[in-house]
Amino acid sequence: MCSPAIIEQVKKRISRRNALAGLGAAGATAASGCLPGAKAKNKGWGSKPEEQVSFSRVVDLSHTLHPEFPAWFEAGVEVTTRGKRTFVPPAIVEVKPVFEWEPDKVNLNQVTYWEHVGTHMDAPAHFSEGSTVDEIPVEDLVLPLVVVDIKARAAKDPLALLNIEDLRAWEDEHGPIPDRACVAMNSGWDKHVGSPRYKSLDEEGKHRQPAFHIDAIEYLMEARKVVAIAVDTFSFDNQHSPGSDVHYRWLGDERWGLENVNNLDEVPAKGATIVVGQPSIKGGSGGPNRTMALV
Amino acid sequence: MCSPAIIEQVKKRISRRNALAGLGAAGATAASGCLPGAKAKNKGWGSKPEEQVSFSRVVDLSHTLHPEFPAWFEAGVEVTTRGKRTFVPPAIVEVKPVFEWEPDKVNLNQVTYWEHVGTHMDAPAHFSEGSTVDEIPVEDLVLPLVVVDIKARAAKDPLALLNIEDLRAWEDEHGPIPDRACVAMNSGWDKHVGSPRYKSLDEEGKHRQPAFHIDAIEYLMEARKVVAIAVDTFSFDNQHSPGSDVHYRWLGDERWGLENVNNLDEVPAKGATIVVGQPSIKGGSGGPNRTMALV
Repeated sequence: MCSPAIIEQVKKRISRRNALAGLGAAGATAASGCLPGAKAKNKGWGSKPEEQVSFSRVVDLSHTLHPEFPAWFEAGVEVTTRGKRTFVPPAIVEVKPVFEWEPDKVNLNQVTYWEHVGTHMDAPAHFSEGSTVDEIPVEDLVLPLVVVDIKARAAKDPLALLNIEDLRAWEDEHGPIPDRACVAMNSGWDKHVGSPRYKSLDEEGKHRQPAFHIDAIEYLMEARKVVAIAVDTFSFDNQHSPGSDVHYRWLGDERWGLENVNNLDEVPAKGATIVVGQPSIKGGSGGPNRTMALV
Repeated sequence: MCSPAIIEQVKKRISRRNALAGLGAAGATAASGCLPGAKAKNKGWGSKPEEQVSFSRVVDLSHTLHPEFPAWFEAGVEVTTRGKRTFVPPAIVEVKPVFEWEPDKVNLNQVTYWEHVGTHMDAPAHFSEGSTVDEIPVEDLVLPLVVVDIKARAAKDPLALLNIEDLRAWEDEHGPIPDRACVAMNSGWDKHVGSPRYKSLDEEGKHRQPAFHIDAIEYLMEARKVVAIAVDTFSFDNQHSPGSDVHYRWLGDERWGLENVNNLDEVPAKGATIVVGQPSIKGGSGGPNRTMALV
């Protein structure tokens, strides 16, 4: 069921979408029903690839996760969300030895983390009542990879957005974004992990990172058949969408995404296959994974 | 440096290996140096595949991990190892909500586990001073998959072992085990998850599961170039190797393995490619992952 507020929101989006040049007939396949937050799992993106896929090289698209890896939330501080005060753990991941080689002759750790750290998935359930990580069909974890390069603009503006013009420029060069793709933003931000530039804090102490423009998201949803997005920063949204529009719109439509991906410079703009090794933990809203590209 | 005890152990192994029929010249490439527990990381298994690999189907080789998933250790009990008493957590994985859709409009969990639960990797570091999960080259996570079926014997004997004859029978049918392979034991045990048969406790309360015979391990190490092993049970060892011989021998030689793999019936004996989506957590001795087969 849609609340009046959500219906109004969808109407506004349809109106805005129709105003976007170039969507044409595809834009007219208006969002039917009530998407944001709706319980409509496994919409069928995941039909298995019909064509043969080939590769001869593996590229690691994950960073190594450790306690000092930068995160959207500040480790060790208290956050207030909708009136609730929550203490963020002092380390974003804790690897605590239970048994050690000396004297146990076995190593085994207890691992603890908040889910959205390191190179990780945002499942639909992170910003909706949709699928958790264990409910995503395995076929959907192996997808054609599209890499959109906005490094030049991001180098000048830490709040640069991947916008609809970037997608069109990509398509002018490479043809339409393939069905079932994962569309990745390469802003060059993976190189800044470990330096203050990763968070690029402004004068108010708010972090600045490149992100997706909501119009680009609408385009991918309405005019193309895209399963996932990926960013080399720690969020799909930045200060240009302070209400987390991209998260609510994309994840609320049973799609998912990846944050903090690495090494996008090492894969071609088109033609690679992304493999998302997402541990299937029951009820997970996302979490650290091993993402690779097969080239 | 090798301790005299370890040198003695290696000598015994060489002697025993030479007694194994059929190893021939390969067996004579004796284990030089001091392997078990030695610090000799990244021995170079991981040269990238030179040939083109193709696939058109993805098979999920992971189980979904949840608090009741069966584990080698008993959740909630106290264990004593080398005189040290340790309390096993009451759940093998804990997924504790930090934020919830109602009222937070965001879902985010804190996840805690002991590393060796669910479908997971044993990195060399689990039973040696070797590589942790983050030190394994990404190329080594994508390997030719060899599936050895011992279901008929395992159905009659829960302590059945994958032995050297099983490997020879596989090779008689399919040719030599390919270089850089992952050799998986299909005992049919994945079907028993959720039933008491998974642990098949004996009269003394000790669990019984199929596993690898140490001779098969020696064969794979000395006569073939194998990177990883996999089992559909929760251990490479069973009551036939109570000193964890397979773990110490295999992991101590900078090789690694997978436990609790799923769905091996859905992949061919030869020709599939295994992809191990192992989260790269610094210092990890193993841990839950998403393992798939590309067929």
